Amino acid sequence: MTIKIGVIGTGAIGREHIDRIENILSGGEVKAVTDVNQESAYKAVKDYNLDATVYPDDVALVGDPNIDAVFVTSWGPAHEQSVLLAIEAGKYVFCEKPLATSAEGCMRIVDAEQKQGKRLVQVGFMRRYDEGYVQLKEALDNNEIGDPLMIHCSHRNPGVDENYKTNMAVTETLIHEIDALHWLIDDNYESVRVDFPRKTKHSHAELQDPQVFTLKTQGGVLIHAEVFVNCKYGYDIQCEVMGEEGIAKLPEVASVVVRKESKLSSNILNDWKIRFMDAYNKELQNFLDSVEKYGEPQGPTSWDGYIAAVTADACLQAQETGEEVDIKLQDTPDFYKKQVAVRN
Amino acid sequence: MTIKIGVIGTGAIGREHIDRIENILSGGEVKAVTDVNQESAYKAVKDYNLDATVYPDDVALVGDPNIDAVFVTSWGPAHEQSVLLAIEAGKYVFCEKPLATSAEGCMRIVDAEQKQGKRLVQVGFMRRYDEGYVQLKEALDNNEIGDPLMIHCSHRNPGVDENYKTNMAVTETLIHEIDALHWLIDDNYESVRVDFPRKTKHSHAELQDPQVFTLKTQGGVLIHAEVFVNCKYGYDIQCEVMGEEGIAKLPEVASVVVRKESKLSSNILNDWKIRFMDAYNKELQNFLDSVEKYGEPQGPTSWDGYIAAVTADACLQAQETGEEVDIKLQDTPDFYKKQVAVRN
Amino acid sequence: MTIKIGVIGTGAIGREHIDRIENILSGGEVKAVTDVNQESAYKAVKDYNLDATVYPDDVALVGDPNIDAVFVTSWGPAHEQSVLLAIEAGKYVFCEKPLATSAEGCMRIVDAEQKQGKRLVQVGFMRRYDEGYVQLKEALDNNEIGDPLMIHCSHRNPGVDENYKTNMAVTETLIHEIDALHWLIDDNYESVRVDFPRKTKHSHAELQDPQVFTLKTQGGVLIHAEVFVNCKYGYDIQCEVMGEEGIAKLPEVASVVVRKESKLSSNILNDWKIRFMDAYNKELQNFLDSVEKYGEPQGPTSWDGYIAAVTADACLQAQETGEEVDIKLQDTPDFYKKQVAVRN
Amino acid sequence: MTIKIGVIGTGAIGREHIDRIENILSGGEVKAVTDVNQESAYKAVKDYNLDATVYPDDVALVGDPNIDAVFVTSWGPAHEQSVLLAIEAGKYVFCEKPLATSAEGCMRIVDAEQKQGKRLVQVGFMRRYDEGYVQLKEALDNNEIGDPLMIHCSHRNPGVDENYKTNMAVTETLIHEIDALHWLIDDNYESVRVDFPRKTKHSHAELQDPQVFTLKTQGGVLIHAEVFVNCKYGYDIQCEVMGEEGIAKLPEVASVVVRKESKLSSNILNDWKIRFMDAYNKELQNFLDSVEKYGEPQGPTSWDGYIAAVTADACLQAQETGEEVDIKLQDTPDFYKKQVAVRN
Ligand SMILES: [Mg+2]
Ligand SMILES: [Mg+2]
Ligand SMILES: [Mg+2]
Ligand SMILES: [Mg+2]
Repeated sequence: MTIKIGVIGTGAIGREHIDRIENILSGGEVKAVTDVNQESAYKAVKDYNLDATVYPDDVALVGDPNIDAVFVTSWGPAHEQSVLLAIEAGKYVFCEKPLATSAEGCMRIVDAEQKQGKRLVQVGFMRRYDEGYVQLKEALDNNEIGDPLMIHCSHRNPGVDENYKTNMAVTETLIHEIDALHWLIDDNYESVRVDFPRKTKHSHAELQDPQVFTLKTQGGVLIHAEVFVNCKYGYDIQCEVMGEEGIAKLPEVASVVVRKESKLSSNILNDWKIRFMDAYNKELQNFLDSVEKYGEPQGPTSWDGYIAAVTADACLQAQETGEEVDIKLQDTPDFYKKQVAVRN
Repeated sequence: MTIKIGVIGTGAIGREHIDRIENILSGGEVKAVTDVNQESAYKAVKDYNLDATVYPDDVALVGDPNIDAVFVTSWGPAHEQSVLLAIEAGKYVFCEKPLATSAEGCMRIVDAEQKQGKRLVQVGFMRRYDEGYVQLKEALDNNEIGDPLMIHCSHRNPGVDENYKTNMAVTETLIHEIDALHWLIDDNYESVRVDFPRKTKHSHAELQDPQVFTLKTQGGVLIHAEVFVNCKYGYDIQCEVMGEEGIAKLPEVASVVVRKESKLSSNILNDWKIRFMDAYNKELQNFLDSVEKYGEPQGPTSWDGYIAAVTADACLQAQETGEEVDIKLQDTPDFYKKQVAVRN
Repeated sequence: MTIKIGVIGTGAIGREHIDRIENILSGGEVKAVTDVNQESAYKAVKDYNLDATVYPDDVALVGDPNIDAVFVTSWGPAHEQSVLLAIEAGKYVFCEKPLATSAEGCMRIVDAEQKQGKRLVQVGFMRRYDEGYVQLKEALDNNEIGDPLMIHCSHRNPGVDENYKTNMAVTETLIHEIDALHWLIDDNYESVRVDFPRKTKHSHAELQDPQVFTLKTQGGVLIHAEVFVNCKYGYDIQCEVMGEEGIAKLPEVASVVVRKESKLSSNILNDWKIRFMDAYNKELQNFLDSVEKYGEPQGPTSWDGYIAAVTADACLQAQETGEEVDIKLQDTPDFYKKQVAVRN
Repeated sequence: MTIKIGVIGTGAIGREHIDRIENILSGGEVKAVTDVNQESAYKAVKDYNLDATVYPDDVALVGDPNIDAVFVTSWGPAHEQSVLLAIEAGKYVFCEKPLATSAEGCMRIVDAEQKQGKRLVQVGFMRRYDEGYVQLKEALDNNEIGDPLMIHCSHRNPGVDENYKTNMAVTETLIHEIDALHWLIDDNYESVRVDFPRKTKHSHAELQDPQVFTLKTQGGVLIHAEVFVNCKYGYDIQCEVMGEEGIAKLPEVASVVVRKESKLSSNILNDWKIRFMDAYNKELQNFLDSVEKYGEPQGPTSWDGYIAAVTADACLQAQETGEEVDIKLQDTPDFYKKQVAVRN
């Protein structure tokens, strides 16, 4: 069976997902598109040679009875409405981050989904599909290093432009660690504090860079998460978990090893898209396969979207106040407690 | 457009390719199958839920006017006939190694393909699609280490069963290096010699293991290729090229790095299928994409199949005689000289 | 010329230094020893076959006109008096940490030394002589990674016994980082805070383990220094400096690389003495050579001892209060500003 | 006790050893020197501030009853006579390679030493004292990788001048592998063959570079030893042993790891003296300690010098003839069979 997909939002990320579905992955077909910019929607149909209807808006697209699943790849503030529409229509949803721009919005989605009685929504946190993170998760789940005590991780970009402000270190960058780390250790955040080292000269007026977030979990795990988006040298994602019996660390990205000019070296990537290309593909393929095979997606849930929203809000407050800020999460509903293995 | 595929041979490798086409890759559909064991063909249709005709033999399958491309995944001795049939019908062919069981057979295919005036055939040497080899090739093509002088490579399996005899070190194992190395350095083999170290106690009566092949190229490159199929510790593919300015080496397979019990360690794979899973997928996706986009496959050609056949024969003779054996290749036809980039 | 040495304190570390001077290094000779336990002093003379006088106390030993340099390797609280005696006698001093047990004591030594008009004292912080730290220092001094912004370091022991209490994480363990880090980045500490992750089950009642110290410098460098003395897996010293242009990290201890049983592994040490054996040797050889060649030691100064004392006190206060504690250092006297290269 | 040393040959290596004995190591003192160039001998005394007699020749120096041990660091052709003189006088000898310039010369030394009834001679093969080789030897001796089957090693220099001819690849370069490898695997060489890849453009008219020597041992171990003395990129010593259960490899030289400009890199040395500085020191310290402690040196013996001479001759013949050449070693005398541990 081929899953018929409607795409809401045909900007950059929407087009990439269309390309994946049509030209790389198996089991999905884009049959409907919409965008606030209708030109963009028509252009996507043409560029990707789609056999798809262009709808005026998300209401119309979701209403198409031929559509099995909706991809929400629009502007962040528009996500909540589209996701709620899809849930109410009983359709599967793959929603790019953020699930909603507020914790309350996420909670409305969580409530709506529970009313439908089964998981419909997957949030686009692709790290969980990265081979390195998958291995790290397995090492932890297999108790290879004992119970976790500390995590040290870094999210580094070679540079960002002037539109990137201090708060985006949370909403655009740390947000990936926020999702990945609680999943890795199966624990909930309790508080966060931010330290600002001296600003790198490669940053600009409205961006404090680097920043280090100190997160504590309910289980007592201490996390240092560095965000450094003008690190110059490359795009580099590091994550190391210290456990009671040992330590496990993400592997370096595999790269040919060269001996030349008195150096033993390998390449560091500069582009996050290349770094996580396989993860993006696996993320979507897993969404398609899970819907087909199990009747529900297996990836990050609406609840994960809610956790990300609450935690990001606390991180933003910590940036502003300089204080340690509590992260107040509601209890996880049983509905979202079921552990789901994402590996095929 | 979806490429309609007929699969000749529904054994293990045939089934894997069917699974890839149907469930992982994009742009192909299996519409016909055949196997000398008709039960097996019917079973494949059922197991993979194919919308495909079962034909009694390759002649009938190739004759189906709806079929665009033929996958030859049957028993080695049957390859030549199926490939020739497909070429004569003007159809694309993806043929697993060997292209034919003799140099003469390969040459008949080469001649037939040239008569058709365009490349139709891709041989299933997947190493060229492995990310590590792709990077190594790029390093060489970008002259990062200067002109190559020596190669040292190893092909190690944890173990093999009693059906694996001394000659299979060439036909089943070294054959991958034979294809990959001449492609890497864009050079032709000239001679080969074999050295047999003391046999490991983990081998059996009819298998000399390990073996080291010393190949020399027309350009003067000296290659040591170790085959060690009872190395116990894992499945491990190593390749290092020494050039005039530096050295480049395949990366280790990325794996979580663990500190535990006084060891800093990462995992070594045991399974060649996992090692080259991505390469297999890329190999077939590239075949489908190239046929679709360029009207001809871009991967290893019939001529590469011929080179492999001639070189493997010389390696077998070197095993038997203990002497240095000449590798006598005919001149490369212009038809096969066109360099084709395989990366998307 | 051979430097004639008097050793005050013939316990474990005193005996090790005697062994180094007599059997490993060049240019020194132990000619006098003393210990509060006179038996121990006589035993050292006998065990190491010394041609040395046993004195009843430090006053007598320092008074021996044949002695050029005094090694203070006694119980910490006794250090200050012995060092002051030696300085007043115009003799060189190699003093194991701590220089004195209080900042005031260190300041008395600093004052006494300045009155003598030349550097006489070297404090036993051996990290600066470790090949890895030397390389890291060179990388920073050569501006290879630009100005430093952050440091992440770890000091891990496989285990400690019940005598090791929470405060000893500062006085016995972190003390080495305290000295090494300000030297590395040529900066002064400004504040410190401690975070306590969940205690590892391998710790005991009176030891909070692990601990993470967050230090900030006057230059704005943010330091996370992890102390984890029941990490189980080995003795492991990590230090990574993030600069404006790149990152530099201590190398792993060189160890044979083994492929075996599906693991690629190298050994991690368990014993800090092996880890820093070369550093200890170089430290003392450099002391002897510098005194001989330049008429003053080149290693860590009394001022470094003072910095360590003030910083350690703040760290202890941070452990107790849970607050961020200021580190109030007096201005560095010109006398101690002269940069001295320690490499031969 | 201090060992009183006479040095025969005050050229570069002689002066370095004098510096070690006087300024770095413990337990030795240079009390006599000689050189065919008497100026050079006097200069050494002055430069190193020695309390030593200058003798007109080796006969006179060896005759000095105060001398315990003789260092032979003269021109290679002069070694045999000096070593024989010292043996006949019952004195210890540390002789730089070669022990003698012919197998017959080595045998005369072996015979003379046996007549004296105890080991007096140590040959200056310092690799055995390198920490990496020591670890590799331990791994093999502890059976960590099972019985050895193959060795792959490389000896690479960044460049050599025009005085370095093809044969020096054996006598100056491979000679270190010749000694180290048979020691590592405790086996004897049986034959050797040489392959010449295309010559690097960085070589010169009278030097074939690189070269690969294929050695076989009596135990069936196959060795590929690459000599590449214009490799451009650095001084690099590699050695990997493939055993029945796994593989062990020399570690890379520890070096700070830098992330910068899209590269993850560490430094490769260019200078063999830095590479083996510790090994040289340990070699001589072990000679001094062993003579003092055990009354005989524990390092490479005269018999090892003989093995090196015979093997090097066969390698030279293999270079000239292009054939596989037998390495005909006499049976090891019982006198030299005693295994001696060199680690302190
Ligand atoms: Mg995403
Ligand atoms: Mg294949
Ligand atoms: Mg010390
Ligand atoms: Mg030597």
